[in-house]
Order: sequence, then C-alpha cells, then structure tokens
Amino acid sequence: MGSNHQHRKSIVNRLARIEGHVRSIKEMAKADRDCSDLLLQIAAVRKALDNVGKLILQDHLEGCVVEAIEHGNQEEVIHDLQKALNNFIR
Amino acid sequence: MGSNHQHRKSIVNRLARIEGHVRSIKEMAKADRDCSDLLLQIAAVRKALDNVGKLILQDHLEGCVVEAIEHGNQEEVIHDLQKALNNFIR
Repeated sequence: MGSNHQHRKSIVNRLARIEGHVRSIKEMAKADRDCSDLLLQIAAVRKALDNVGKLILQDHLEGCVVEAIEHGNQEEVIHDLQKALNNFIR
Repeated sequence: MGSNHQHRKSIVNRLARIEGHVRSIKEMAKADRDCSDLLLQIAAVRKALDNVGKLILQDHLEGCVVEAIEHGNQEEVIHDLQKALNNFIR
C-alpha cells in the first residue's frame, strides 16, 4: 500500500485533532465538569471518528481496491474490502 | 456536582487510555499501515468511548439525579437527564 493513499495526510491531521479533543475531555473530567457537557464532547469525538473512518474507507476504495481491480485480483479485492468493512461497520 | 461522582477517577483513566489509543492510531496512519488495521483500531476506540459515556451516565444517575430527587427537584431532574441523554444517544 502507500503511494495510493491520497487522504493519508488529512487522516493523520484529523486523528491529531481527535487526540487533542480526548485530552481536553479528560481535563474536563478532572475538573469535575458537568456530566452532560462531557457527554456532548464524547458524542462529538465519536462523530469525528466516524468521519475519519469514512475517509480511510474512501482511501481504501480509491487506492487499494481500484489498483487491485486494475491488476485483475478480483478475489483479493472482495476479501480485502470485506475485511475493511467488517472492521468498521457496527 | 462533584462529590457525588464516584466513577470520575475511572472515567479520567479511561479517557487517558483512549487518548493514547488515538495517538497510536495516528502513528499507524503516519507509518502508512493497512486501511483495515486502522479501521479495526478506530472501531475499538469508538467502543471504548461508548463505554466511558455509559459510565458518565451511570455517575449522573447515581449522583446528580438521585440527589436532586432527594431534594425534591423533580422537574430539574427530568430536564437534566433529558439533556444528558440527548447529548449522548445517537
């Protein structure tokens, strides 16, 4: 894999922001902030994780899957995509 | 709020672990690791966030809500709980 991941940089940046967001929720919890404030922030992180997951899937489709189809590895493509979807969909 | 949050320490510890987990996924993305490996780790963080959210709700019920009922503030209880649930449930 690798060269065919055009969103990878954006994915790293988003994960860095999510990391900072979780750190700030941890600080809110330490500071004994209101439960519903914490829950609101946790829901926001969950949404951001879903979005970064979708971007990873998009990279996977545009990069790995398209490349594998071009090389005629259909079986591998299906197996690979099934694995990625199984890992992500609830 | 405050003194009636008996799970708060565990919540802070869980958030610290989630923060570290997101950081390690970011490093995996930087190292150009496989898309499906990233998605598996993102799903694990999502699950951990759900669990810490449930623990915050539990704290909220055991602490704030019970206390408010004892003080006869039923309306405030309902409003407060509705707010917390709205913030968390998808």
